Amino acid sequence: MPDPTTGLPVVGMVGGGQLARMTHQAAIALGLSLRVLAESTADSAALITPNVSVGAAGDLDAVRAFALGCDVLTFDHEHVPQPVITAIERAGVPVHPSSHALRYAQDKADMRSRLGAAGFPMPRWQVVSHGEQAAHFAADCGYPVIVKTITGGYDGKGVWLLGEQDALPEGRFLVEERVDIVREWAVMLGRRPSGETAVYPVVETVQRDGICVEVIADAARQPTEATDLARAIAEELDVTGVLAVEMFERSDGSLLINELAMRPHNSGHWTIEGARTSQFEQHVRAVLDWPLGDVSMIQPVTVMVNLLGAQTPGLPQRLPAALAAVPEAHVHLYGKAERPGRKLGHVTVTGVDRETVRERAALAAARLGGT
Amino acid sequence: MPDPTTGLPVVGMVGGGQLARMTHQAAIALGLSLRVLAESTADSAALITPNVSVGAAGDLDAVRAFALGCDVLTFDHEHVPQPVITAIERAGVPVHPSSHALRYAQDKADMRSRLGAAGFPMPRWQVVSHGEQAAHFAADCGYPVIVKTITGGYDGKGVWLLGEQDALPEGRFLVEERVDIVREWAVMLGRRPSGETAVYPVVETVQRDGICVEVIADAARQPTEATDLARAIAEELDVTGVLAVEMFERSDGSLLINELAMRPHNSGHWTIEGARTSQFEQHVRAVLDWPLGDVSMIQPVTVMVNLLGAQTPGLPQRLPAALAAVPEAHVHLYGKAERPGRKLGHVTVTGVDRETVRERAALAAARLGGT
Repeated sequence: MPDPTTGLPVVGMVGGGQLARMTHQAAIALGLSLRVLAESTADSAALITPNVSVGAAGDLDAVRAFALGCDVLTFDHEHVPQPVITAIERAGVPVHPSSHALRYAQDKADMRSRLGAAGFPMPRWQVVSHGEQAAHFAADCGYPVIVKTITGGYDGKGVWLLGEQDALPEGRFLVEERVDIVREWAVMLGRRPSGETAVYPVVETVQRDGICVEVIADAARQPTEATDLARAIAEELDVTGVLAVEMFERSDGSLLINELAMRPHNSGHWTIEGARTSQFEQHVRAVLDWPLGDVSMIQPVTVMVNLLGAQTPGLPQRLPAALAAVPEAHVHLYGKAERPGRKLGHVTVTGVDRETVRERAALAAARLGGT
Repeated sequence: MPDPTTGLPVVGMVGGGQLARMTHQAAIALGLSLRVLAESTADSAALITPNVSVGAAGDLDAVRAFALGCDVLTFDHEHVPQPVITAIERAGVPVHPSSHALRYAQDKADMRSRLGAAGFPMPRWQVVSHGEQAAHFAADCGYPVIVKTITGGYDGKGVWLLGEQDALPEGRFLVEERVDIVREWAVMLGRRPSGETAVYPVVETVQRDGICVEVIADAARQPTEATDLARAIAEELDVTGVLAVEMFERSDGSLLINELAMRPHNSGHWTIEGARTSQFEQHVRAVLDWPLGDVSMIQPVTVMVNLLGAQTPGLPQRLPAALAAVPEAHVHLYGKAERPGRKLGHVTVTGVDRETVRERAALAAARLGGT
């Protein structure tokens, strides 16, 4: 049921976070207005788009009522239960990514199992449900090992190190060897239901305390193996929409698959200004099965720095000084209340010299953060 | 009264056209959500922002009620009567541009008179209220002369040629000599209440039937005299927000001031992707008296082509093929119903080679327009 005024299709997104917010921003250019199923009218996206329904992602009735008003349904997070998604698919609403693909971004054990069977390089891993299994696994790999909740983790939540003296909590977990990481990479791509795929330039991601703090897109550092792996995963899992593949690089230069996300992703925010088509526009085009946009870089280097909530609030007061300090910075604020450590926005700078661009982006973020 | 969640100020814009639409899009990045006073809920901007009031720009009560909820009031068009604006100013709401500045974008006779007194180069002009005066003026300049309505004209409406045999309608008009134009330029700038001014690169505008069809920003063609004139006008009139100055270039290379607009302007749409700060973000920053953004070009050439409604509707059906034909094009659709000649959107392409960029932008627009 296309929009009666414009004749253009209606895209609905489950979840009202900053990814939906920036997807709406991109959708406006295409003549669209994103519909959002938010948990609250105070959600980041709900503040800036008029077509908001309030409901939980796990509430089948709410999601179905929402989906039936849309030409295609997609997601700003992974927390929509499989039975809800499959019910929407049975109701005849196109869903991208499909339940068949999305499960591998929802369930880390399924992802490891499927990609392992297909021969993709990964850390050693095992699903465990008691301490003895974990100890057995760790005896092989060496302590400490990584423990992950199988579903629901994000931004360092649901991931921790297990040492020899630590007890495993009750439950079923994924344990993984602790890899000697020299660098982390992420690859973003867009893929249409009809198969067209466009892979963005590879980016380096810098993590602190399990949270991505900086993303560097540098035309001069493009490991083609990473591109090939991401494309192969998208095809293996029949991903539609955008896909982010996070990878580890070991000291010997080899790559291992870390995590997948089948939605716009923090590691792709740089594309808003740094690439000819942003990941948000690409996601909209892909889920509508429209031709994909050009993913090439506009400048040789683009750096994105996340803005995390400071110990001392006062972002609105600091904003003018930050704008003055780095007039070339692209500031993105998500409309969220300040809380220490919370992702409140990000800053992007594009340019030619890698270290200069990094410094300028870091300076803008520091001024916004009051440091 | 800043927003209670974010602590950021509230910007209200009178008028809900595509300029308000794209201003909202830019405001989202700054953590804001533009409030819009639209004539109808079907207006271009009203479709994509949640904070919409419906009311006429000439209705003092409607504008006042709207303005009292805002930290600053600004405009997407010139059609707010002076008594309405001055009433809002007296009520204590900051208005940018102020009534004192905006009158020179509202009243072409006032603009000619003020800029003429200040010594700015302009075509010969006169205000006339009957045919004999016009004939007298034309006897000096030579037929045909240009006739303009003093207020309310746009996009070639309210402007026509008067030949020796033509009768002047009843009323008061501005008549101007017909200048031998070899080229038309436009200069966009942002200016804060505290005086900081940032002038964008000069652009060449290409008109057809009085409507701008193409805008070319070319780093290699920058007449500095145009920049100086625009800056001087902004200071002379104490403009706040963004200002567009349209100019004629004569065969001897001299420049004449044509028109002014004190709002985001069609000639500045290229800045969304072509400059480090878009005119829409700059307008928001300027009216808030925040530091201005970097106005430099990202690539040597950016070309914008307007998308005018075709004789044959079918834009939604043509869109995928247009996206496929020019994957590097930035398409902007305004959410308007199709009507022949109506501005429905625009397309921007950035690059290095002027003629290639022009061709690619024209191709995308042609595919969208079905030609």
